Amino acid sequence: MADILMEKCSAAKSAFPVLATSKGEQRNKAINLMADALVRDAALILEANAKDLENAKAAGIRTSLIDRLVLTEARINGIAASLRKVAALPDPLGGGEVWDRPNGMRIKKVRVPIGLIAIIYEARPNVTADAAALCVKSGNACVLRGGKEAVLSSVAIVNSVRGALKEAGLPEDCVQVVEDTTRESSNRLMTLNGVVDLLIPRGGRSLIRAVVDNATVPVIETGAGNCHVYVEKHADMDMALELVYNSKTSRPSVCNATETLLVDSAVAADFLPKIKARMPEVELRGCEKTLKILPDITPATEEDFYTEYNDYIMAVKVVEDIEEAIAHINAHNTKHSELIVTDSVAAADRFTAAVDAAAVYVNVSTRFTDGEEFGFGAEIGISTQKFHARGPMGPEALTTCKYLINGNGQIR
Amino acid sequence: MADILMEKCSAAKSAFPVLATSKGEQRNKAINLMADALVRDAALILEANAKDLENAKAAGIRTSLIDRLVLTEARINGIAASLRKVAALPDPLGGGEVWDRPNGMRIKKVRVPIGLIAIIYEARPNVTADAAALCVKSGNACVLRGGKEAVLSSVAIVNSVRGALKEAGLPEDCVQVVEDTTRESSNRLMTLNGVVDLLIPRGGRSLIRAVVDNATVPVIETGAGNCHVYVEKHADMDMALELVYNSKTSRPSVCNATETLLVDSAVAADFLPKIKARMPEVELRGCEKTLKILPDITPATEEDFYTEYNDYIMAVKVVEDIEEAIAHINAHNTKHSELIVTDSVAAADRFTAAVDAAAVYVNVSTRFTDGEEFGFGAEIGISTQKFHARGPMGPEALTTCKYLINGNGQIR
Repeated sequence: MADILMEKCSAAKSAFPVLATSKGEQRNKAINLMADALVRDAALILEANAKDLENAKAAGIRTSLIDRLVLTEARINGIAASLRKVAALPDPLGGGEVWDRPNGMRIKKVRVPIGLIAIIYEARPNVTADAAALCVKSGNACVLRGGKEAVLSSVAIVNSVRGALKEAGLPEDCVQVVEDTTRESSNRLMTLNGVVDLLIPRGGRSLIRAVVDNATVPVIETGAGNCHVYVEKHADMDMALELVYNSKTSRPSVCNATETLLVDSAVAADFLPKIKARMPEVELRGCEKTLKILPDITPATEEDFYTEYNDYIMAVKVVEDIEEAIAHINAHNTKHSELIVTDSVAAADRFTAAVDAAAVYVNVSTRFTDGEEFGFGAEIGISTQKFHARGPMGPEALTTCKYLINGNGQIR
Repeated sequence: MADILMEKCSAAKSAFPVLATSKGEQRNKAINLMADALVRDAALILEANAKDLENAKAAGIRTSLIDRLVLTEARINGIAASLRKVAALPDPLGGGEVWDRPNGMRIKKVRVPIGLIAIIYEARPNVTADAAALCVKSGNACVLRGGKEAVLSSVAIVNSVRGALKEAGLPEDCVQVVEDTTRESSNRLMTLNGVVDLLIPRGGRSLIRAVVDNATVPVIETGAGNCHVYVEKHADMDMALELVYNSKTSRPSVCNATETLLVDSAVAADFLPKIKARMPEVELRGCEKTLKILPDITPATEEDFYTEYNDYIMAVKVVEDIEEAIAHINAHNTKHSELIVTDSVAAADRFTAAVDAAAVYVNVSTRFTDGEEFGFGAEIGISTQKFHARGPMGPEALTTCKYLINGNGQIR
């Protein structure tokens, strides 16, 4: 049997040098043509999507996943609009500092693409288009391996995308879609050293864990979010109520939603009954001290404080002071997003300096950790590691640097 | 038996938060005090070094390694001077861009340290001091595991270093030296996930390979250098002679020395006899076309073109054009340093765009790939990977970022 996965990776790898050395205008043109193509090919894409939906329903997919899978003309227009935004972003390649050395050589530090990027993600057709556009923007070839329920939609989208690349004079092989959605294809992508230069898993905890355990290629871990809100004793209580409410309930299924509430013991007796009344839809699970104030709620286990519920559940812990809050967070969090609600500058400074996370908030909902909200225009994911990229990753996270040195015969 | 390695790592990890949140002045003060301490404690350090030398000679160490191992008062003064340079460098922590979002929240991107850095290196006492200083500079705790021949010297140096940290009011446990220099201690450091945040191997190919094969913690690969000089047909032949000579022979044992010479076929008949005459101390190993011009030299095998000789040996290949040169380099190099000698702007542009390496030179010796030569003040190594850091790594390569977001109750 032909090794289709390897053939696709090799084709992408061979096409990469042309994309890598192309001009920003040409890459932007290709992305705008992708947007045009998706709109033009909408009927074909919707037809493929209808088949995906039919298959998924026949296989008994959960209703919550159907919403992510389903495409409409309006959604395709939305995807095209987001691609046009990517095209309008500054070129992440080239540019850079230039400096001269005493021996007369001139050093220029430029940004260059990484190579072949593999992205493993859920059954979300919009990610297929977004990821392809961000990779083309940053000069990288990509191999896209989405969830099986969306495979026909992804193939249809990639057909349009590849046509647009060709129309723009760029090699269509730069964007590849993996039609084999078995676990084997995923595991192979994790271990194709020398072929796959970077793997980005986007999805649930089980995927991230499989990647961390098995991958031998470089990986950027994304999206694990055990986030906390700490209501410090100098907090404005009304603001704290709204920030906790928004951080927990505005979209509980996402990684920047809050999972644990920490409340300073000095204000716990006042604040805890109020927050319980403010969010009746949320199940609270409290530590012993919390239970003394809210005796009717479920007791929290140590396991609760490590859990990313992604649901209308929140763990609650009363802490003696900011140091206990910081220590609890650093021991339990996933280094994603953490919030202190306080009017004390000293408390805010201590918290932001000592809490170890990609994003540390003072009096702002944790829900803002997002490439668009940060002003990056688009994101390929939210890195929870410290290596290479941290926090929301825009196109620049998909680049590395290169030093170019010019001279006239300098020797050492 | 007590697990001394884990105890040291845990002590460093516990001390890290204090160092991480310390002010730059205090870290610089500590580094200057380290320099003072090394000079003050020179007699003790030299005594330890003499014992190391005695043991090494008894064990039959190679003469070439003795030069790296031996300390003198002058060398200790040199180490102290390089530490004072590190102290004088700008603070790699904090700072960063600040921007406001339409909802009124302010985002600040700051640089923060990574955590506990393990460094595995050869029997070079100066690396012990340099690495400790660069880690303290960047707010990182470190565990230093040098080669066994220098262990007493390293322990003596770290004693002085830790005393200086204490004197500066910083936790001395931030710097740890591993006295167990068995392979086991090295292998354990590679797999202490959750404890060691970053591993930097410095040393020969066998160490780098062991780390790449075995490490499960994040790694920055350093120092593998299969570097090329390409003499393009528009090269100034005199300049080319001197650049090849310098790149190959000024210090053949180091990673930025050149290993392979590529010569354009249009100038090969003229250039090859000249370069052979220019460097009689170098053994040339040629491809078939080279042998037609220089029939007396050794034939090169394909293996030769993958070999980092670190010696007075150079592989030579005649190429038809720049595209063959680029293809050969990208297929054989270690992504370290590559040079084109040419007077053609078009050739220089094509070469620098298409060659995949940390440093790409036009008419400058490959020997300049070095933190000091690049103006970074100091280096912890030269990264040959694309991830996180590439090329010479100054203190900033030992940092990551963190987003601090301030507001007044913004919700999403």
